[in-house]
Order: sequence, then C-alpha cells, then structure tokens
Amino acid sequence: ASNKKLLILPGDGIGPEVMREVRRVIDWMDRRRAVRFDIEEALVGGAAIDVHGVPISAETVAKAKAADAVLFGAVGGPKWDGLGFDRRPELAILTLRRELGLFANLRPATVLDPLVDASTLKPEVVRGLDIMIVRESTGGIYFGEPRGIESLPDGTKKGVNTEVYTTPEIERVARVAFELARRRQGRVCSVEKANVMESGLLWRQTVTALREREFPDVELTHMYADNCAMQLVRNPRQFDVIVTTNLFGDLLSDLASMLTGSLGMLPSATLGGLGPDGRRHALYEPIHGSAPDIAGKGVANPMAQILSFAMLLRFSFDMTEDAALIERACTNVLASGLRTADIMQPGMARVSTQVMGEAVTREL
Amino acid sequence: ASNKKLLILPGDGIGPEVMREVRRVIDWMDRRRAVRFDIEEALVGGAAIDVHGVPISAETVAKAKAADAVLFGAVGGPKWDGLGFDRRPELAILTLRRELGLFANLRPATVLDPLVDASTLKPEVVRGLDIMIVRESTGGIYFGEPRGIESLPDGTKKGVNTEVYTTPEIERVARVAFELARRRQGRVCSVEKANVMESGLLWRQTVTALREREFPDVELTHMYADNCAMQLVRNPRQFDVIVTTNLFGDLLSDLASMLTGSLGMLPSATLGGLGPDGRRHALYEPIHGSAPDIAGKGVANPMAQILSFAMLLRFSFDMTEDAALIERACTNVLASGLRTADIMQPGMARVSTQVMGEAVTREL
Ligand SMILES: CC(C)[C@H](C(=O)O)[C@@H](O)C(=O)O
Ligand SMILES: CC(C)[C@H](C(=O)O)[C@@H](O)C(=O)O
Repeated sequence: ASNKKLLILPGDGIGPEVMREVRRVIDWMDRRRAVRFDIEEALVGGAAIDVHGVPISAETVAKAKAADAVLFGAVGGPKWDGLGFDRRPELAILTLRRELGLFANLRPATVLDPLVDASTLKPEVVRGLDIMIVRESTGGIYFGEPRGIESLPDGTKKGVNTEVYTTPEIERVARVAFELARRRQGRVCSVEKANVMESGLLWRQTVTALREREFPDVELTHMYADNCAMQLVRNPRQFDVIVTTNLFGDLLSDLASMLTGSLGMLPSATLGGLGPDGRRHALYEPIHGSAPDIAGKGVANPMAQILSFAMLLRFSFDMTEDAALIERACTNVLASGLRTADIMQPGMARVSTQVMGEAVTREL
Repeated sequence: ASNKKLLILPGDGIGPEVMREVRRVIDWMDRRRAVRFDIEEALVGGAAIDVHGVPISAETVAKAKAADAVLFGAVGGPKWDGLGFDRRPELAILTLRRELGLFANLRPATVLDPLVDASTLKPEVVRGLDIMIVRESTGGIYFGEPRGIESLPDGTKKGVNTEVYTTPEIERVARVAFELARRRQGRVCSVEKANVMESGLLWRQTVTALREREFPDVELTHMYADNCAMQLVRNPRQFDVIVTTNLFGDLLSDLASMLTGSLGMLPSATLGGLGPDGRRHALYEPIHGSAPDIAGKGVANPMAQILSFAMLLRFSFDMTEDAALIERACTNVLASGLRTADIMQPGMARVSTQVMGEAVTREL
C-alpha cells in the first residue's frame, strides 16, 4: 500500500500534549502493520499567530489540501483573546472548513458503559447513548453575505448576518447523513426552524425530496430546533442520525456531547466532497477545546484525540478494523480502571496524559 | 382601584381546558379581593383560522392593544399542519409579539422541590434550579429582511433569512435583564456567537457598554451560545439571568425548561416597552404547547397557565402579594400529593385538570 499523507496540526493549549499520545499510536501502527504514514506537522491557532501573524498560513492550507487527511488538535487561549474578529485563533478551523470544502461535520455522542455515571443525566436516560449529529459546516450564517457592523446616520449601529442555503448545499450534507444512517439504525431526523425561517423550509423540502429520490429505505423525520434541544434532554436515545444547519448543529452537537458527561472522550470528523481524483478532504479533531487552564500539566485526557485518529482511519482510509481496534483499546483501558482527571471516579486510578496514552498503546 | 382589562386567548388543543381553571382563580379574586377584571375572550390559532380564515384577526389584535394584559393559551394542531408559511397557527403569537412590540420574552426555569425527580437530570444537579432567560422576541432572524426562497437560473433554489440587531434593540432587552437581575442574584450572562457573527459581536459590545453606563452594580459575563447549551446541561445552577437573541433564546429557553422535567409547570411573560400612557403591553402564556394528543380528555396540567396568570399579576399590575399567594397555592397542592398525568410520580394521587384547578382555588 502506498504511504498515507497525514498533516498534524496540534495547535494550542493541551493540543500538543494529547497529540503526542496519538503519535504513540501511529508509531505502533508503523511498526506492526502494513500501512505507513508520511507525517507533516504545522502550526495553527495562537501558535501560528505568534510565528506567522495569522491563525493559519497559506502554506499550511496548501499542505492540508495536499494531505490525505488532517488531524487537528485545538486552538485558542487567553493570550490571543484580545485579537480582532479577523485574527482570532478559531479562524484556523473556519478557514480549513472553507478552503477544503469540509461541509459535513460528524459529531458522535456516545456513552461508554464505564463512564455512564459521568453524565449529569440519570444513567437510565443515557446508558448506551449513540447519536451521530451531522452538522453542515461550510454554509449558513457562518459564511453568508451580507454581514458586518454598520453605523447608522442617527448614531446607532446595526449588526447583520445572513443565513443562506442552496438546494445543492442541503443535498450534499443530507446525503452524508442518509448514508451514515444506512450503516446504523436507518433513521435520520432533520432539524431546522421551518416554522419561522424560509431557509429552514427549503431545508425541509429539499431533505424530504432527496429521501424520496435516493434513500426511500431510510426513515426520515423532521423536528424544529427548539424541540430538538428539548428532546435531547428528555430522551436522547430516540435519535439515530440528526442532520442540521451549521448554527443549529453548533449548539445541538455541543449539547449532545455534554449529555455524555465526558467531553474528553469525544472525537469528530469534518468531511468534504469527493474530488476528481477520488479523494475526499477530511479533518479530524477532538470536540474539546485547548483548555488553557490545564495545559502543560500533563493531566489532559488524550482519548478524544486518539479516537479522532480512529475516525480518520475509518472515514479517510476505510481501515475499519484498525479503527475498531483502537476504539476497543480505549474502552478496555477505561474498564481496567484508569482515568484522567476529567473523568475521575471514586475507586479508579487517576493517571496522567502520558500514562493513559501508553496504556492504550500497550492494550493495542 | 379601576378595573383591569384582560384579554384571554385560549387558542387550540388543551388551551381552552387549562384556561378554564384560570377562570376559577380569577373568580376567586373577583369575589374576595379589591381588584376587578374586565375580561374579553377571543379566538386565536387554528380556532381563528376555522372561523376567520386567519390565525389572528385584526379585531383581536386591536383588542390586545387596548387590553392591560393578554393571557394566551396555546395554538396549533394536526388539523392546521398543512397550511402555508403565512397561515400557520403560530403566526398568532408572532403577530402579537410584533404588533404589540413585545420584545422581552421572560422564560423562568425553576424546579420546585416536590418535582425534583421529574427531571432527567440527577436531583443534585437541578435541585433548587432558578434561572430566568430573557429572550429578545421582536428582532433577529425571526423578522429580518431580506428573507424568502428564490429560484436560481440553474434550476436550484436558495433560502435566505437575515439576522439583524440594532443597538437600541439590544439595549432595551438587556435593560430588562439587568433590572430583573437586580431583584434576583444580581448576575447577567449575555449569550451570542460573537466569535463567528458580527451581529453577535455588536450584541456583546452593546451589552457591555450598557452595563458600564447604567448597571455597574450588576455582574455581567459573556458566553458563546454553544457553550451555554453545554453549561445548561453540565451545571445549570451557575446561571441567574441569561439574556440572548430571539433564535438562541428559542433553543436555550426550551432546553432550560426541559431541565426541570415538568413543562406543564412553566409560565412565561413577553413584555413590551412603556407606552406614552405609562402602560406596558404584555402577554403571558404557558411554555407548553397545545398538546393535541391529550386535548379534550381533561388530563392536562393547568398549573403553567395558572402560574402565567400569577406572572401577569406581578409584571403587569405589580400585585406581588397576590402573585406569590397563587404560586404558594400551587406548591402546596403539589406538596399535598396531587399530580396531573404529566408529572405523576409513584405514591401520588393522579387527578384531572379540573380537580387540580379546584385544589389550587381551595388552597387559596
Ligand atoms: C471555534 C468555533 C468557530 C466553532 C464553531 O462555532 O463552529 C466551534 O464552536 C465548533 O463547534 O467547531
Ligand atoms: C411558535 C413558534 C413560532 C415560537 C418560536 O419559535 O418563537 C415558539 O417556539 C416559542 O418559543 O414561542
């Protein structure tokens, strides 16, 4: 097999620490298995601002485009909080989504049995939870024009953003959701505010028509976003796949993550379309942030970053077996009683980032 | 004291049933106390569509404007689901918000001790919960122009909505939040997505400046909407007053309501500005919907509608004592073990809408 080109972007805060543990897993794969990775590393976020003056350099974007997959850590921290709207560390991730056309953000929310008590929800409500949220991620109000702040003649100001969705944009992300559902429980719930927003009405109509045309075997329901927020709290296990807009997906996927009580465990993927060369751009990142408060202390949980790498193997390289192997290793390590601080429970052994990473590699 | 003019709009589904129990409370007040109400009743929602062809008639809007306060039930049902975007029952409430300038939607999320187990969250996370969400309700993406669905030359379609906020719009709703905080724990958390939306950035700047000018005694923090959705699940009691946009408020207030596990208990108020005559338009409604599935069966919980009336007394007529009396009566009835089906618990007595309403009046 030819070498896989990986771009690793550790970023800020705990990003580099947790990424180090992924390198351990990659080394193990390099040693033991057929696959080989060509790895490049680059700066993003505050780290890139400090060196290049921008949250992501054009050169790094070019490297990301050339890579088979991008593994991203986390960005941001108090040091860069005062920067203007167009120089924030978060722009690194927004730029990559836009430049690589990463329109489908996959956000699993799963509760592993050993961690069922970590949730603020009752165990009987979240045990076995397994939701996949597909969030549109290159459109909607995040990127719509016109946008900006305008000074009005009377001395007041007006802030404007625009939610725009076209039928092709809706179709391609819905298609990802339907395809995922086929490999899961076969149910998609499409979420918008069609009762107050025309863009939501178009969303609903387009998803409905697509299902009839291409996915009649998948069950499709529709839900308003406010109701979805409620249902995620009331009975989250009613959902299989949820597909929604960029903005609703931002809130709802974070809400769903928090239902698990263990953000340090959750990976994500953001996928683009198939290119002419048959390749699909893709970026993988933990859903947790850069956690500046605990950075450098060696206490961060590396699991979400390691599981992001497992998602990378599954979605970018079809290495389902290896992905499952890593996922199982993580579950086993938890079952053996090791815990980083964020998921610590009475009676368990509290370990550092490195010990956790080593335990996963050993389990492999 | 002069008579208070009340407009009662029962609406659809369980609306009329639960409103009947409020009438019991009003009758009791009429009999026992100094205050007198002049009450008018009118149709809204599906009921108005059936009779007038529109979800709310111009005449009813005029009556609402002339009233000192509006008590609203709930609207909608499967019968009217197929109607177009501009004839839905929900338009009744959107029209009233716009026509009466009801810009501040107050959504309390409180957990009464007898109902702490109704939540899907662990009792230790929600016990004593008492959040007030102030949602902007006449601006933002709900009303912004341009909006609509457009057919493009290439045969695809484009759906557009616009988020617009001006500084005066932000200030007036933030002022309501700061004033409420002064009568509570003195803390306001302002919520937007200033990291990706300029309208959110203007929101943040405007709220910050207003606090410095007029409310230096109130503590102000800022939170991104996605983080707020998470924090509401992680540790909801960290919040006192939350102020946010129309769209974020729609999701976050419903999420906060569901944390209590007892939607049938939660009232809301929507307030306008002070008019030239010193009057403030205001509408009060339970946060639950019309619940067509249980309508007409006499099993709906009338508490939220009764507590909406208590809010009406407090906010429109400054009748704090009477409001507290009604609220206490509701708590006592719960403590005595009566439950409607929606909040039924083992060992409690399951009662009908009417028995619950009578119990509250008796307790008064
Ligand atoms: C960093 C920020 C711009 C981003 C977003 O709002 O999309 C983040 O919250 C996310 O969910 O990936
Ligand atoms: C009925 C609907 C238009 C309304 C809204 O979205 O504002 C409702 O969800 C609410 O929260 O009052």
